Amino acid sequence: MHIPEILIVESLHQPGNLGRLLTVIGEYGALIDHITLDRRDENKSVWEITVEMDEDRSPQLYDRIDALPYAKLLGRSDRVFDRHRGGKIHTVSKVALDSTQQLRDLYTPGVARVCLAIKEDPEKVWEYTNLGNTVAIVTNGSAILGLGPIGPVAGLPVMEGKAMIYAKFVDISGVPILLDEKDPKKVIETVKAIAPSFGAIHLEDIAAPECFEIEQTLAETLDIPVMQDDQHGTAVVTLGALHTAAHRVGKSLDNSIVGHIGLGAAGMGIAQLLMHHGVRRLIGTDLRENALERLERLGGERASLEDVMQQADIVIATTGVKGLIKPEMVHKGQIIFALSNPESEIDPSVALERGAAFATDGRIINNALGFPALFRGALDARAMHFTNAMFLAAAHTLAELTPPHELLPHVLDRSVHAAVAAAVKDAALKEK
Amino acid sequence: MHIPEILIVESLHQPGNLGRLLTVIGEYGALIDHITLDRRDENKSVWEITVEMDEDRSPQLYDRIDALPYAKLLGRSDRVFDRHRGGKIHTVSKVALDSTQQLRDLYTPGVARVCLAIKEDPEKVWEYTNLGNTVAIVTNGSAILGLGPIGPVAGLPVMEGKAMIYAKFVDISGVPILLDEKDPKKVIETVKAIAPSFGAIHLEDIAAPECFEIEQTLAETLDIPVMQDDQHGTAVVTLGALHTAAHRVGKSLDNSIVGHIGLGAAGMGIAQLLMHHGVRRLIGTDLRENALERLERLGGERASLEDVMQQADIVIATTGVKGLIKPEMVHKGQIIFALSNPESEIDPSVALERGAAFATDGRIINNALGFPALFRGALDARAMHFTNAMFLAAAHTLAELTPPHELLPHVLDRSVHAAVAAAVKDAALKEK
Repeated sequence: MHIPEILIVESLHQPGNLGRLLTVIGEYGALIDHITLDRRDENKSVWEITVEMDEDRSPQLYDRIDALPYAKLLGRSDRVFDRHRGGKIHTVSKVALDSTQQLRDLYTPGVARVCLAIKEDPEKVWEYTNLGNTVAIVTNGSAILGLGPIGPVAGLPVMEGKAMIYAKFVDISGVPILLDEKDPKKVIETVKAIAPSFGAIHLEDIAAPECFEIEQTLAETLDIPVMQDDQHGTAVVTLGALHTAAHRVGKSLDNSIVGHIGLGAAGMGIAQLLMHHGVRRLIGTDLRENALERLERLGGERASLEDVMQQADIVIATTGVKGLIKPEMVHKGQIIFALSNPESEIDPSVALERGAAFATDGRIINNALGFPALFRGALDARAMHFTNAMFLAAAHTLAELTPPHELLPHVLDRSVHAAVAAAVKDAALKEK
Repeated sequence: MHIPEILIVESLHQPGNLGRLLTVIGEYGALIDHITLDRRDENKSVWEITVEMDEDRSPQLYDRIDALPYAKLLGRSDRVFDRHRGGKIHTVSKVALDSTQQLRDLYTPGVARVCLAIKEDPEKVWEYTNLGNTVAIVTNGSAILGLGPIGPVAGLPVMEGKAMIYAKFVDISGVPILLDEKDPKKVIETVKAIAPSFGAIHLEDIAAPECFEIEQTLAETLDIPVMQDDQHGTAVVTLGALHTAAHRVGKSLDNSIVGHIGLGAAGMGIAQLLMHHGVRRLIGTDLRENALERLERLGGERASLEDVMQQADIVIATTGVKGLIKPEMVHKGQIIFALSNPESEIDPSVALERGAAFATDGRIINNALGFPALFRGALDARAMHFTNAMFLAAAHTLAELTPPHELLPHVLDRSVHAAVAAAVKDAALKEK
């Protein structure tokens, strides 16, 4: 795996030594991100050099540097782990709390009046607490990223990552909830029990097919929005990118035959959203019978991998199987989204060589473009449910805001999240 | 109820008008907190006047001001509600997240390495996430403040108040968890299910006797610290104050007969801690047979209200019943803690008149002096349970840090919380 790390290297003062050192680093396939002077003595300098390199080759590089006559490795640190130290989120007070008067208003005795006002009119909880801004990020750890069932605690860094993104992009307070429980009935029961604590429920990295039952039951039972990000967040971002891609190659999305390879949480979420978008024919393949039945209930048709590749104008692969699409399966003019991470079903450059009109992989589908604005919009509208209209509004807005020559807007652009959230809110309010 | 509010009042420029206006306000029993100029025109000034007054008398005051020839009420606002608007806490990111590089380290793909490291060694979750700094604040709303079973949602402002205090005083991330459930078995089940999400569990405002079963079962089952604040947080602060009071009047706590009036969550918590402190004889009274049995199991003796008042050197009342202790029941030299809020079992000044050596009421026992440092110390020690040694260490430290002529340290003094947390941590480490 490519890992970013920081090398602390001392080099003797001599013209060209830094350049020579960087050349050596480059020979080991390391990409240089950043170079900063740490300190400078009379005859030597100490550098912090941030590199990204293959974990397996690192030890050889360390030895090589130490063997240089003009340099010495003083130490190293791992940026990913350093940045994670202590976690990525925390809860803070919105108020200064620096006087007894404030403590008396915000805690006892003052708080009693606010409690009684909410008891009298429960709607007031949305006005006088942070509830309407708080989203539970619930996982049972059964499908963390592409890593599989590594458990909820090992999944916490992902959940904190979601909460960090909520905080930074849309000012939502995300609360990781880790459930060490595979049984969907028990997951449902626990989420229902704690639901009064939150303004909405974000389900994350729960494996198919359990995720479908969990999401559907909770969405039907609770009067706050519930959404599994892996299904619908991913679907919204994918649809946004599909719009851009189809437009670029002059294809109509709805008049295309769309073929799905892999019908897990992401695949089904995308398929469902495309059906609601108005795609005229949707075919799909999966190894699991229950996945194919689910597709049929949605109005899609089951097919073989070969049939999908032969018939589909647009191919969407979400299998987790590297190289599943053979180059010879590609046909001319196809749009191919091979979305599995970190390694896709077919290399986009190979697909393009074989005549595909457009090809991309999963790195482009940054789902951080989806969930923050979806939940912000739903909360702002005080929606009780997510609807396809809300998902479609988000996808269209993403497509509209995409700069020329890009497939999607930039994820760090807060104005994008604000615009998508506004579109989601409008769509929700129209249905109220 | 006394409420703080802000009056916006215009007064004509004329020597003495502001003084006259304040005199009028004073006639209605309003206490003035704060006066600020809002704006000044050629012939008049507009003031913001913050007052605390009896809710029932406010309308008469408004009319009276409007009838003054030199003043006019332009508007008013309610400070308690204004300060609660939008809630008191929110989740923020600990990292800047202002570059793609950061996003790649802290979210995908970098985060996968941290997940795998935790999968490999679950202890690492304490180092690379905020888990060890996160405390669930769990309530079922069955005994919110002195307001009774107003429900978990109406109790949220109190839970956010606790989280605000955690954030400000000891940098703990508090997460309100609201359970709409009276059955202790189900409360236990839900808390167990979500426990992997937290470093510790703070139970709050859960009614007796269910609170005892809930706390005990969870503390025995989970490998993270569990504590009901109403029992032990209150007990720690009360014991701290008792130390100071006993010392002041020259009594030995352990050689005293301590009498409890009321054996709910707070009463039992205090009784239990006093027994562990070494008090030689403890008698108590309550209307509920199960409370008396609980006291006996602890080593205390049941008694009538009259017996308690006759025999006890130190009386601790936690009944919620205003005026329960009649002046003639007080005997000379007694220490009386009449702790019910907002109105106590006996007015301290009355108890002193009747010969009590020392008397105080519940306003002095600010439990915000207890729970923040207890949980901070427990988390810092990575303790798996709260123990009496930890509670006693906290109480002794509070007593030690109390300034002369005070009963307890000041709650806004962060150094007090830090010192108490350090004492709790030390006590926990000694028992490991």
